[in-house]
Amino acid sequence: MARYRLTVEYDGAAFEGFQLQPGRRTVQGTLETALETMLGHATRVHPAGRTDSGVHARGQVVRFDTETQVDPRRLQNALNGLCGGDVVCVEAALAPANFDPRRWPHTKQYVYRWLVRPAPSPLRGRMMWHLRSPLDVAGMQAAAARLVGTHDFTSFRAAKCSAKHPVRTVDRCEVVQVGDEVHLIVEGSGFLRHMIRILAGTLTEVGKGARPPAWISDVLEARHRTAAARTAPAAGLTLEWIRYREAWIPDGTPPEDDDDS
Amino acid sequence: MARYRLTVEYDGAAFEGFQLQPGRRTVQGTLETALETMLGHATRVHPAGRTDSGVHARGQVVRFDTETQVDPRRLQNALNGLCGGDVVCVEAALAPANFDPRRWPHTKQYVYRWLVRPAPSPLRGRMMWHLRSPLDVAGMQAAAARLVGTHDFTSFRAAKCSAKHPVRTVDRCEVVQVGDEVHLIVEGSGFLRHMIRILAGTLTEVGKGARPPAWISDVLEARHRTAAARTAPAAGLTLEWIRYREAWIPDGTPPEDDDDS
Repeated sequence: MARYRLTVEYDGAAFEGFQLQPGRRTVQGTLETALETMLGHATRVHPAGRTDSGVHARGQVVRFDTETQVDPRRLQNALNGLCGGDVVCVEAALAPANFDPRRWPHTKQYVYRWLVRPAPSPLRGRMMWHLRSPLDVAGMQAAAARLVGTHDFTSFRAAKCSAKHPVRTVDRCEVVQVGDEVHLIVEGSGFLRHMIRILAGTLTEVGKGARPPAWISDVLEARHRTAAARTAPAAGLTLEWIRYREAWIPDGTPPEDDDDS
Repeated sequence: MARYRLTVEYDGAAFEGFQLQPGRRTVQGTLETALETMLGHATRVHPAGRTDSGVHARGQVVRFDTETQVDPRRLQNALNGLCGGDVVCVEAALAPANFDPRRWPHTKQYVYRWLVRPAPSPLRGRMMWHLRSPLDVAGMQAAAARLVGTHDFTSFRAAKCSAKHPVRTVDRCEVVQVGDEVHLIVEGSGFLRHMIRILAGTLTEVGKGARPPAWISDVLEARHRTAAARTAPAAGLTLEWIRYREAWIPDGTPPEDDDDS
């Protein structure tokens, strides 16, 4: 048996989320159908984390097992010929037999993007949340800085979040202005369901001047979903990359099962 | 009578070019239909330069005349409500009565983009020419530098180009590597039909190592379309911006009628 690791990019708008659902076009379903055609047998695709409907990925990582040994480059090209263009394999490699994209220690980067100008954008709009009025970026930066570190993120998890514990460590939480775009960059080993989008929605309130930057600490301390603002639209969120630690100690404590985005 | 200047952004893939054609979806047709609905009378839209089918624009400039005085911000919002999202008005302003986006002295920036990696990109692919094999960027840079200045660009004009003279001045012609993308940045007051795309196609031959950088000077001197390489695909080209000189002397020599992209 051989285990493969794939890095995949997809346009979230073209799928109803990552996870397989009967009768719906999903990233997992598309990859599994293509792999079955190619390998001649069904195989399950396991991601580092499921992304919700509408959320994009530039560097999602998945693994699958097969009895059929395939050259990784040929695997990549064959997959890209079968997947139809909305999801592509950016990299394919043979992986250690125990490689687990979800449980092996890693850092993930998510970026949430706002387009801030009177007009929407036909060229960039599909990856952004369009707001017509200016955002107070300095205020958002001050608020974002308060989220770095290990916290109980209960206020920032969806009601349907299945994670056992609400404590997560955010290594980086930064807001940057890029021309007429504002980007929220969040890095950490894993997040709760909708966590980044609830953070983005809550920072938007600060950006609009409706709340002061220090309010974010009150939201965090409230430990209740209703303390935070509404979940920001999925289209603005992209899973940028996932980096695995080079030296994984198999008997270390595996990180919790995540269901982020 | 009032003259308005609009800056418009459009996704070239959604239109069969800028110029009005009966029975086809064009940028001009879409803008004119929306303006007629809004103003209650037909009006002609005149661009700084027509772009070909598939070519994108972030900052095309057009003008139109109307008897109906409208607040520019309301004009912009109404237009964006009527145009359907593939073309939007990024800026609207009242213009001097003699403002002519094509004849008033200006500098235009076009960028041609290549995506260079084994896999196509669902998220960035629609604005790029996808090449699987690496490009020799240093070679392309050396070749591009030879195009700066005033030259007879006959070798780089489409057979159907309608310009009277083939001499143009290129102020900037630079190739830059941006991650897995390569960008060709070209600035000047106007270009011949397909000029940037034929430049991009010809630089691609240098990038692939099929020709040395100095070959571009031979192509230029040949003054014949067949000396250059094939026209690069339209999807890779974007009209980025057009800047008008602040002090326009109405009796100065107007630049030649251009039909670029």
